[in-house]
Amino acid sequence: MPNRRPPAGAAIQRESVTTAIRDAVLIELAEHGYGRTSVEAVARRAGVGKAAIYRRWPAKLDLVMAAVSDAAVRPGDIADTGTLRGDVLSFLRAGRALLGHSLGRRIVPDLLAEAIRTPALAELMDRSIGSPRRELAASLIERAIDRGELRAGLDLELALDIVPGALYWRLSVRRAEAPDADLERMADAVVAALHTL
Amino acid sequence: MPNRRPPAGAAIQRESVTTAIRDAVLIELAEHGYGRTSVEAVARRAGVGKAAIYRRWPAKLDLVMAAVSDAAVRPGDIADTGTLRGDVLSFLRAGRALLGHSLGRRIVPDLLAEAIRTPALAELMDRSIGSPRRELAASLIERAIDRGELRAGLDLELALDIVPGALYWRLSVRRAEAPDADLERMADAVVAALHTL
Repeated sequence: MPNRRPPAGAAIQRESVTTAIRDAVLIELAEHGYGRTSVEAVARRAGVGKAAIYRRWPAKLDLVMAAVSDAAVRPGDIADTGTLRGDVLSFLRAGRALLGHSLGRRIVPDLLAEAIRTPALAELMDRSIGSPRRELAASLIERAIDRGELRAGLDLELALDIVPGALYWRLSVRRAEAPDADLERMADAVVAALHTL
Repeated sequence: MPNRRPPAGAAIQRESVTTAIRDAVLIELAEHGYGRTSVEAVARRAGVGKAAIYRRWPAKLDLVMAAVSDAAVRPGDIADTGTLRGDVLSFLRAGRALLGHSLGRRIVPDLLAEAIRTPALAELMDRSIGSPRRELAASLIERAIDRGELRAGLDLELALDIVPGALYWRLSVRRAEAPDADLERMADAVVAALHTL
């Protein structure tokens, strides 16, 4: 078709290569952990050359962070439901989807452990995942303050530890399940805890 | 001194060897992680032969679990203060001491990540650390039920996720500090959350 403009096609192909690389990174991380994941293995799994990876990311650390942050930070995840309880429940559901996925079950705990021995990884994780996710959670608290549901000037840092804490303990530390009914009760408990701040 | 009975001296020496081995395991784990900790290196650090280790524990897995569980599960840690808030605060303080120690900062996250790839380790961690610590926390809830502070028949599983959740998130996931004033506020928040169950 003479009307098809080559740049668009090339751009689409570039995008699909990027997606294939990111998917391959997540699978390699889940299977082997950060320490034993290599750029070579990611390239092989994605069906691309190593040059295709290095054109996009200068090193394994950047490649890993791009893939993980892309999967872990999704602004649309936390709905504005109009109530604190609704927003907390939405946050817990999104957290369960994330931590129930192999990303949360296998990759995040491995990266947290690796970060202890690799300060550059710790810093990048905080910048690419920790801070953006924390901002998402902060917006939930700020909406509640604006609505008068929570006290302005509350201890925001503590609020942001309370919202994800019990769910993370259940899913990632204990590796147990969190059915819907449990998330509903957890949302009630979190809201009551936030009201004390 | 002819009165000194050899068995007592030998027992004391055996105990001091056991202690040296356990301390060496914790240091090796904190520095190198489970995957790169070897029985050889532990023996070298403890100044004993490998046989002294294998006489006590059949394999690296058992050696690691003995050392970690010994450090992580201390029944005296959770005081019976007479109130739910006092017991929760005591639990949080003990948790901070544990997670602030290199054991919690470096070893526990590493073991949790390793457990994902090593089911035998996951099972042993649950039996040697998870379950005993959970029983300690359950006794705190049960005392509150006996005093009429919490409802009999509450969701105990959720209660046991709420008590440690925010503190673990603060100290181990975010690697931030938890000063006394924060633990006081956290105790109030946890108690309010428990009252909804």
